Amino acid sequence: MMHLGVCWYPEQWPEDWWEDDVRRMAAMGLTRVRIGEFAWSRLEPTPGRFDWAWLDRALDLLHAHGLGVILGTPTATPPKWLVDGMPDMLAVDAQGRPRRFGSRRHYCFSHAGYRAESRRITTELARRYGRHPAVVAWQTDNEYGCHDTVVSHSAAAAQAFRAWLAVRYGDIAALNRAWGTVFWSAEYRSFDGIDTPALTVTEPNPAHSLDFQRFSSDQVLAFNREQVDILRTHSPGRDITHNAMGFVTSFDHHALGRDLDVVTWDSYPLGFLEQFWFSDADKLRYARQGHPDVAAFHHDLYRGCGRGRFAVMEQQPGPVNWAARNPAPLPGMVRLWTLEAMAHGAEFVAYFRWRQAPFAQEQMHAGLLRPDRTDDVGAHEARTAAQDIARLAAAHPAPAARAPVALVFDYQSVWVTDIQPQGAGFSALRQAFEWYSALRALGLDIDILPPDASLEGYPLVVVPCLPILPAGFVDRLAGCGGQVLIGPRTGSKTAEFSIPAQLPPGDLQRLIDLKVTRVESLRPGVAAAPVRDWLEHCETALTPETPLADGQGLVYRAGRLRYLAATLEDGALARLLAAVAEDAELAPQALPDGVRLRRHRGLCFAFNYAPEARRLASSGAREFVLGAEELPPAGVAVWREPPPRKVH
Amino acid sequence: MMHLGVCWYPEQWPEDWWEDDVRRMAAMGLTRVRIGEFAWSRLEPTPGRFDWAWLDRALDLLHAHGLGVILGTPTATPPKWLVDGMPDMLAVDAQGRPRRFGSRRHYCFSHAGYRAESRRITTELARRYGRHPAVVAWQTDNEYGCHDTVVSHSAAAAQAFRAWLAVRYGDIAALNRAWGTVFWSAEYRSFDGIDTPALTVTEPNPAHSLDFQRFSSDQVLAFNREQVDILRTHSPGRDITHNAMGFVTSFDHHALGRDLDVVTWDSYPLGFLEQFWFSDADKLRYARQGHPDVAAFHHDLYRGCGRGRFAVMEQQPGPVNWAARNPAPLPGMVRLWTLEAMAHGAEFVAYFRWRQAPFAQEQMHAGLLRPDRTDDVGAHEARTAAQDIARLAAAHPAPAARAPVALVFDYQSVWVTDIQPQGAGFSALRQAFEWYSALRALGLDIDILPPDASLEGYPLVVVPCLPILPAGFVDRLAGCGGQVLIGPRTGSKTAEFSIPAQLPPGDLQRLIDLKVTRVESLRPGVAAAPVRDWLEHCETALTPETPLADGQGLVYRAGRLRYLAATLEDGALARLLAAVAEDAELAPQALPDGVRLRRHRGLCFAFNYAPEARRLASSGAREFVLGAEELPPAGVAVWREPPPRKVH
Amino acid sequence: MMHLGVCWYPEQWPEDWWEDDVRRMAAMGLTRVRIGEFAWSRLEPTPGRFDWAWLDRALDLLHAHGLGVILGTPTATPPKWLVDGMPDMLAVDAQGRPRRFGSRRHYCFSHAGYRAESRRITTELARRYGRHPAVVAWQTDNEYGCHDTVVSHSAAAAQAFRAWLAVRYGDIAALNRAWGTVFWSAEYRSFDGIDTPALTVTEPNPAHSLDFQRFSSDQVLAFNREQVDILRTHSPGRDITHNAMGFVTSFDHHALGRDLDVVTWDSYPLGFLEQFWFSDADKLRYARQGHPDVAAFHHDLYRGCGRGRFAVMEQQPGPVNWAARNPAPLPGMVRLWTLEAMAHGAEFVAYFRWRQAPFAQEQMHAGLLRPDRTDDVGAHEARTAAQDIARLAAAHPAPAARAPVALVFDYQSVWVTDIQPQGAGFSALRQAFEWYSALRALGLDIDILPPDASLEGYPLVVVPCLPILPAGFVDRLAGCGGQVLIGPRTGSKTAEFSIPAQLPPGDLQRLIDLKVTRVESLRPGVAAAPVRDWLEHCETALTPETPLADGQGLVYRAGRLRYLAATLEDGALARLLAAVAEDAELAPQALPDGVRLRRHRGLCFAFNYAPEARRLASSGAREFVLGAEELPPAGVAVWREPPPRKVH
Repeated sequence: MMHLGVCWYPEQWPEDWWEDDVRRMAAMGLTRVRIGEFAWSRLEPTPGRFDWAWLDRALDLLHAHGLGVILGTPTATPPKWLVDGMPDMLAVDAQGRPRRFGSRRHYCFSHAGYRAESRRITTELARRYGRHPAVVAWQTDNEYGCHDTVVSHSAAAAQAFRAWLAVRYGDIAALNRAWGTVFWSAEYRSFDGIDTPALTVTEPNPAHSLDFQRFSSDQVLAFNREQVDILRTHSPGRDITHNAMGFVTSFDHHALGRDLDVVTWDSYPLGFLEQFWFSDADKLRYARQGHPDVAAFHHDLYRGCGRGRFAVMEQQPGPVNWAARNPAPLPGMVRLWTLEAMAHGAEFVAYFRWRQAPFAQEQMHAGLLRPDRTDDVGAHEARTAAQDIARLAAAHPAPAARAPVALVFDYQSVWVTDIQPQGAGFSALRQAFEWYSALRALGLDIDILPPDASLEGYPLVVVPCLPILPAGFVDRLAGCGGQVLIGPRTGSKTAEFSIPAQLPPGDLQRLIDLKVTRVESLRPGVAAAPVRDWLEHCETALTPETPLADGQGLVYRAGRLRYLAATLEDGALARLLAAVAEDAELAPQALPDGVRLRRHRGLCFAFNYAPEARRLASSGAREFVLGAEELPPAGVAVWREPPPRKVH
Repeated sequence: MMHLGVCWYPEQWPEDWWEDDVRRMAAMGLTRVRIGEFAWSRLEPTPGRFDWAWLDRALDLLHAHGLGVILGTPTATPPKWLVDGMPDMLAVDAQGRPRRFGSRRHYCFSHAGYRAESRRITTELARRYGRHPAVVAWQTDNEYGCHDTVVSHSAAAAQAFRAWLAVRYGDIAALNRAWGTVFWSAEYRSFDGIDTPALTVTEPNPAHSLDFQRFSSDQVLAFNREQVDILRTHSPGRDITHNAMGFVTSFDHHALGRDLDVVTWDSYPLGFLEQFWFSDADKLRYARQGHPDVAAFHHDLYRGCGRGRFAVMEQQPGPVNWAARNPAPLPGMVRLWTLEAMAHGAEFVAYFRWRQAPFAQEQMHAGLLRPDRTDDVGAHEARTAAQDIARLAAAHPAPAARAPVALVFDYQSVWVTDIQPQGAGFSALRQAFEWYSALRALGLDIDILPPDASLEGYPLVVVPCLPILPAGFVDRLAGCGGQVLIGPRTGSKTAEFSIPAQLPPGDLQRLIDLKVTRVESLRPGVAAAPVRDWLEHCETALTPETPLADGQGLVYRAGRLRYLAATLEDGALARLLAAVAEDAELAPQALPDGVRLRRHRGLCFAFNYAPEARRLASSGAREFVLGAEELPPAGVAVWREPPPRKVH
Repeated sequence: MMHLGVCWYPEQWPEDWWEDDVRRMAAMGLTRVRIGEFAWSRLEPTPGRFDWAWLDRALDLLHAHGLGVILGTPTATPPKWLVDGMPDMLAVDAQGRPRRFGSRRHYCFSHAGYRAESRRITTELARRYGRHPAVVAWQTDNEYGCHDTVVSHSAAAAQAFRAWLAVRYGDIAALNRAWGTVFWSAEYRSFDGIDTPALTVTEPNPAHSLDFQRFSSDQVLAFNREQVDILRTHSPGRDITHNAMGFVTSFDHHALGRDLDVVTWDSYPLGFLEQFWFSDADKLRYARQGHPDVAAFHHDLYRGCGRGRFAVMEQQPGPVNWAARNPAPLPGMVRLWTLEAMAHGAEFVAYFRWRQAPFAQEQMHAGLLRPDRTDDVGAHEARTAAQDIARLAAAHPAPAARAPVALVFDYQSVWVTDIQPQGAGFSALRQAFEWYSALRALGLDIDILPPDASLEGYPLVVVPCLPILPAGFVDRLAGCGGQVLIGPRTGSKTAEFSIPAQLPPGDLQRLIDLKVTRVESLRPGVAAAPVRDWLEHCETALTPETPLADGQGLVYRAGRLRYLAATLEDGALARLLAAVAEDAELAPQALPDGVRLRRHRGLCFAFNYAPEARRLASSGAREFVLGAEELPPAGVAVWREPPPRKVH
C-alpha cells in the first residue's frame, strides 16, 4: 500500500508545537516524514561542535507516533562558516563569477575540500542515526542540479575535468582525434591547458562540450556515491534515495538510480507548466491542473531510473512561490496528483511541506497547514487521499505489470541536442515528452526506459530521439519482437560527437536500409504539412509510407521497424503513433480531451485534467472502486480491469 | 504666482553669447535659472585649484536681469582626476563590475572618501555663493537613483551595510531571527561576513534584500543630508531642493523630502510613456502627449514628499534622446504640461534646457532654443504659458485646499513587491498608479500621502498596496472619518518581511474581520472576470459585496472600510472606485476619454490629452478664464469653481 | 570567364583521399582551391618547428591537376601553445571578460606580441610558398570581425587607443573640445587615463564611442597591412585578398579594399535571412532561397570596396549550422547564386566547403560532398553552373560597364547610427539595404560606392543615410550631373559627432536650402502614412513635393537634388524611387515579385527568388542564351541586351 508522507522542518518551529504537529500528521493518515536536509547550521552551529539534541527529540517523537523518517544529509546548504573557511568551494558560473552564499546549492561538486566536508557530515549523521528505529530511509543532499548547479567553471572543476579527460583518453593524441581538434587549429599538446568550455568567441567544439557535460554528471554521481557508501556502512537495511527535480537533465539520473535503492522526485505540476515550453493555450487551460502528462511522464521516467522503485518526495500541496505565475490548484487536484502517483506505482507521496513558513525565501509556498497552524486545502485533500488509498488497497489488486509501450530515453541525448540544437528549440527531452503525451492521449501505458534496458516482450517500442546509440542497442531493438518507431536524429552521432561514417542513422542501418543525407531545421510553415520544424532527406530504396506532395518520404518501414524522418504537427504525430499502436495490437483509443488512464495492479485509473466535466466512453461493465463514468474537473475514477492484452 | 525657469549651462557656450541668452530668458517671462550642477571639472579643473570667475560672472549677469538662481552642487559628475585618485569610489553593479568613468553618477554612496569630497566641494560652493543675491535656492546633486545608481555592491557598500545591520539588530541572533536564517542553514555567526545580496544561486532571503534596499536608501539620505547641513550653514534663507526623477523608487523620497524645503522633479512625459509598463495601444495613442496621468501622478506624489511644496525642475520642451522612440510633443503640449503643473500647485516649472547642446550625450535632447540660437517650439510655448500664468494669477484665486481623495503610497511597498512579486509584473508602484489613474478619470483630485501622514478629514482614503503597515497606520485609518478602500497585499508582511502571525491583512484585522489564507497570481484569463492577475482567498464571516460566479468574494466591507481581494480589469476597477467615491459623496463623473480635471485655488483646470478635440460635459455657467468648452488636442480650459464639496 | 573554386582542408582528411578529391574537383569544372587558413597548429605544431611537408604535397597535387591555389594565412586560429605563451593576447569583451581559447578569432588586434606572431607566421608561409607555381593568390586571415571580434577592451587595446588619440588630437585640449567633454564634467587632463568606452553608468560620450570604433577599425587595417606587405615582398604577382563576412560593418571595408587587390566575401543567403532584420513573412517566404537582394547587395558593395574587383570566397552549398534555423536551399539555388555572382562581375565563386566534415563545430555545415565522399546536391549544381558559365562566356560578352545608379554607403554611417540610433532599430546599414532593395525591384542595376568615389556620369545618385559628409562630397554631388536623392540624417553630424553649426543637413545646404530643426523617432502608426518611423521637421522656403495632410513636407527639391525628410513605408519608398528614376530617364519597371535582373557585359540575367514560377514581362525579341521567359522557382534566364541607356 502506498504511503503518504510530509516534509517537516522542526528546527523552524517552536518546540512546543512539535507534538501537536506529529499527532496531526498521524491522524491525517501520514506514515512518512522527511526531515533534516537543510539543517546543517543547526546540527553543527560551530565547526566540529554538534547539537544533536533537538534532532534526537524530533526523531523520538516521530517514532513514538509511528511515523517512519526519511533523514536527509544537509549538504545542499553548507553553512556560512564552512564557506568562509574555504571560499573556493563556491561554484563558478559560465561567466566566471563565483556564486555567493545566501541561498542554497552554492558548492562546486569538484572541490576536494567540500567533498571531504560532505563525507564528514554524512558520517556524523549516519553514525548517530543510522540505526535509529525511526529512520526508514535516507535522502542524499537535495535536488541535485536544481537552479542550474551541476556545471561549475571553478578552478577545481577545470582541474578535475583535465584529470577526467586524461583517464578517458589516455593520451592527448586520442583526445585530439576524438574531438577533431585539427579543425580550427584547436589541437592540444597536453591535458594541462584544457579549459572548461566557456567564454569562447563562438561555440566551443561540441565534443568538448559533451565531455564536459559527461564529466559534470560524473562529478554528481561520485559526490552522491560517497554519501551512499557511508550510509550503507552505518545504516544497514535502510533505503537510500535522492529527490530529483522535474525536467532536470543536466546529469544522468539513470546512473544515479543505479547507486540508489529508490528514486524519488519532486512534483510541482503548476510550476512546471508555467516554466517550460508549453503553449500559451495550454498554460491558460491547465493553469490550475498542470499539464495532464507532466506528472505521469516523471513517474514513468523515475520508475525507470529506479528500476521499478520510485516515489514522490515533494508533492505540491497548493500555490508555490517560484514560477512566473503561481495559481492555486483546482479543488481536488492535490488528491488527483496523489492517486495518479499511486497509479504509476509510487511507493509513497510526501507533501512539501507540513506548514507554510512565514519567513525566508519560500514564505509564499503553501503547505498542508497554513502558517497559523490551521489546516489548509492540502490537508483536507491529503486526508481524502489517505482514505482513497486504503479503499483501493483493499480492492485486492493484482501484482504490478509492465506497460505495453517502451519509450527509450537517455540523458546524453538531451545534452547532444542542447549542445547542437541545429534548429532553435530542438530538444530530445521535448521530443520524448511529446511522443509520450501523444501515446498517453491514446490511452496507452508507458514504461520510460534507459537505452541499456531490455526491450524484450514489449509490443511497442518507441525511440523519439537517441543521437548516440549505445552498445548493443541495435541488437536489443532487433530482438525485441515488437513494433518499433524511431524518431529523427536517432543514430546521428558517434560517441565522440561526430557524424557516423556510414551517415545517420548509423548502426541502425543494419535494421533499415536508409541514409540520412541532409537535415533541415525549419520555421513552422516552411515545409508542407504535416512537417513541423525538422525534415531529413533520406537516400534509400524503400518506398516511403506517407510521402509528401513532392514525393519526399516522411516514414520508412522495414518489417516491424519504422523510421520517422521529420518532426510532425501534433495531430499527425498522434495519427502515426495510433497506426503503429494498431499494428502492435494495442487498441489505441482517442481519450476525451484532458482525460488520462493508467492501469496498475489490476485496477484502471482515470483522471480528468480538463477544467470541465468529462464522461468516459461507455463500456459494458466497469466495476468502479472509486468514482464513476462522469468525471468532474479534477475527478478520479478507478475500476477493476485485467492487465492489458499483449504484454508478456 | 508660479515661476517659470530654465536650466542653463553657461560653461558650455561662448561667453559672448551669455548676455543675449539671459536677456531673452527674461523677455520670455522666465524668472528662475538652474545652473552649475554638472560643472565640477570647470569649477575645480585641478585638485584644490578653483576657477570661480566664470560662475561669478554668470551669476552676476543673471542677477542683473532679475533672474533668481538655483545653484546645484556638482556631485553627480565627479571629475576624472578625482576618480583617478580613488578608483574604489566607483559604484559596483550586481554582477560585480565596477562602473567606469565616462558618463555620470559613477560614485558609490558608501565610499567615505567620496563622501568627504562631496562635503568639500559643497562647502566651497556654499561659502562662495551662499549669500550671493542671485541665489534663491540650492539643488543637491542631480537625480539620485537615475540609471539605477542607488545600489552599489562595492567593498565600501558591503562594509557599510554590515555596520548598518549591526546598528539595526544589535546582535547577530536578532538578525538571524528577523530574517529567518534557520531556513536553508543561512545562519550568520557575526555581522562580518554578510554580503550584499547578489550572485546567489537562487534568490537571496527577501529580508536580506529588503534590508539592503533600506540601507541603500539610507545611504542616499545621509549623503544628501551632509550637503543640506552645509548649505543651511552657509546659505541661510535659501530653499534647498533636489530634483527627483520620474518612476524612480529605489530610495525613500518621503524621507528625502523631510530633509529638504521643496521637492522638485524632472518631467519627461513622452519618455516615461515609452519606457514604462503602458500598453502598446497607449504608447501609440499618447505618443506625442504622454499618458494623461503620469505628470499629474508625480506632481501629487512629490507635493506629498515636499509636504505641500514642490516644483518641476526639468520640463521636457521637445523630443528627448533617451527613450526607445523619441517623438516631438503635439503642438501645445509644452504649454499644457506647464499649466498642469500649476494646477497641481507647483512653485515653478523650469525647462530643460535653455539651448540644445550640439555635442556629447544629450545632443539630441531639445531645448527651448535650437543649437543655432533660434527659438525652438518650446520657447514659443513657454512664452504663451507665461502669459497664461499671469492671467490666471490675476483671477484672484482662492487659497490652496487639500484634495478630497487621499491615496497612500510608500516606497518600501515597491521594494517589497519588487523583491517578491510572486506574480510576474506585480508592482506596488503600478498598483498605485493604476488606482490613481482610475480616480482621475472620474474627475477626482488626489493627494498622494506617505503612510505616516494624517488622514483625518479625507472623505475618501485609498490604499492600493501597502504590504508593511507602519506603526499607527491602522489607528489613523480608523480615525480618518472617510470611506476607505484597501487593495490586495496590504498588511501582508511584517517589518521583517514575514507573513504576520494572524495572517494578512495583519493588524488591519482590527478594522475588518477577515484572513487572507492563500493568494494566487494568474495569467489574465485564468480567473473569471473581472479578476485580472491576482486573487486572494479570504476566510471571513462577512458576506462579500461582489461575489464571483462561484461565490468567492472580491470585495468585503466592514462599515466605512472595504477590502479588495484581487486585481481587477480596468473597467471593473473604475466601477468599484466610482461606487466608493459615491459613498464618499464625491460625485465622481466619467470624464471624456483623455480629458482630466484639476481644481486649484478656486479655479478648475481641464486638460485634453486626447489626439482629438473633446467637449466638456455642458454645465450651466462656467466662468472661463482660459479656453472654452471645446478643447482642441493639447487644449487647456480654466474656469472659476468653488472648492469641492466635502473637503474639510 | 568566371572561375569556380572550393575551400579544401586536406589536413582534415586521410592523405589517401586527396588524389580522388583533387581529380573530382577538376572534373567538376573547378579551377580554384582555397587552402590553409585554419592550419596553424598543423603547420607549426610546436613553437618554431614547422611541418611543411603535407602542404607541399597538397599544393603539388593541386598544381598537377591544374588548380590554382588561394593560400590563407592562419592567423584567425592561433594555436594553444601560442595563447599559453602570452595569455594577454586574448581579446576582452565589453563586460571585461577575456575570451577563451577553444573556437576561433580569439586574439586582440592591438596586442603587440600577437602582431609579431602574425608577421612571423605570414613571413614563414610567404617565404616558402610565395613563388610556388600553384599559388595564384593569398587570403589574409579569415573573416575579420566575424563573431563581433573587431572591438577588444583589453589592456593592450586601451593603451593603443590612447596612443591613437594622442596622434589624432595632438593635445588633450583638442580632444576635450572635439568630444565636448565640458558636458557632465568629463574633461580629461591627459590621454593617459582614457578608457575604452564600456561599463559606464549610462551611455558614454558618442564622440568617444565613435573614435573607439575608428581606432578599432584602424587596428584591423594595420594588422592586415602588415600581412599584405610581407606577402607582396615574398610573393610577387599574386593577388592578395581577404574574405569579408556579410553584414559585418565593424571596420571600414572600403579602407581594407584599398590595401588589397581583390575583395572577396562569404555568401550565406539562408543564414543571413534568418539572422537579420527581415520580417517573419520574408523569413517564411524566402526560407530556402534567401532574400532576393542580400547576395546582390554584397556583390555590389564589395565590388565597390575592391574598386571593381571582387569574388565570392565562400558560397553556401547546402544547409549551414549557425543560424537559428537551417533549411536546405531550394533545388537550383546553388546554381542561381553562382550565376548571380557572375552577373555582378565576380572573378570567381568558391564553394565552402569541399566535403562536409563529420566532426567539430561545423559538422552540420554542408559541403559539395557528403561526409561519406558522395556528391551532395551542391556538387551537381556546381557542375551545372560550370557548364552554364562556359556557355555564357562563349556568348561573346561586351566589356563591363558601370551601373546607372550609384548608391553611396560608408561604414562610419553605420557606426554613427549604432552609437546613436535615437529611434530603436535605426541603422544606416538597413537604410542602405532597403533603398537598394527597392531600386532592384524596379529592375535597376546599382553600384554601391564609398563616399569618396567619383559620382560623375551617374544618371541617378542615391544617398540613403550619410550623417558625416566627407570632404569634397558635396562638390562631387553638385558636379555629378544626375538626379540625386538624399535620405534622412544625411549631413546631420560633424566629424566630431556634433550637430553642425548650421544645423543638418550641414554643408548640403549649399545644394538645397533647408534646415532640419528637429527629428522624431516614432512607433509605426504614430505619424500619418506614408511615414514609417522617422520624421524630420524642416525650416525652408521650398514647397514640399509631397506634403502630409497637415502640410508638413516629406520631400523637398532643389533642381536635380531631392531631400527625403522621413523613413517611408515600403510602397511609398518604391514610388518615390521610381519617380526619381523616371526623372533620370532610367525606365524603372516593377518586376514580378521575387524576380531580379542584372545586366553584365552585354547580357541581361533574370533570377527568380520566388517559391513559385514567374513569367517575365513579354518583350519583343529576347535572344536567350540560357532559360526562357518562364522562370521556374530558382530559375535563371540570360539574354543578350545592349548596355542600359544613359550610362556614360
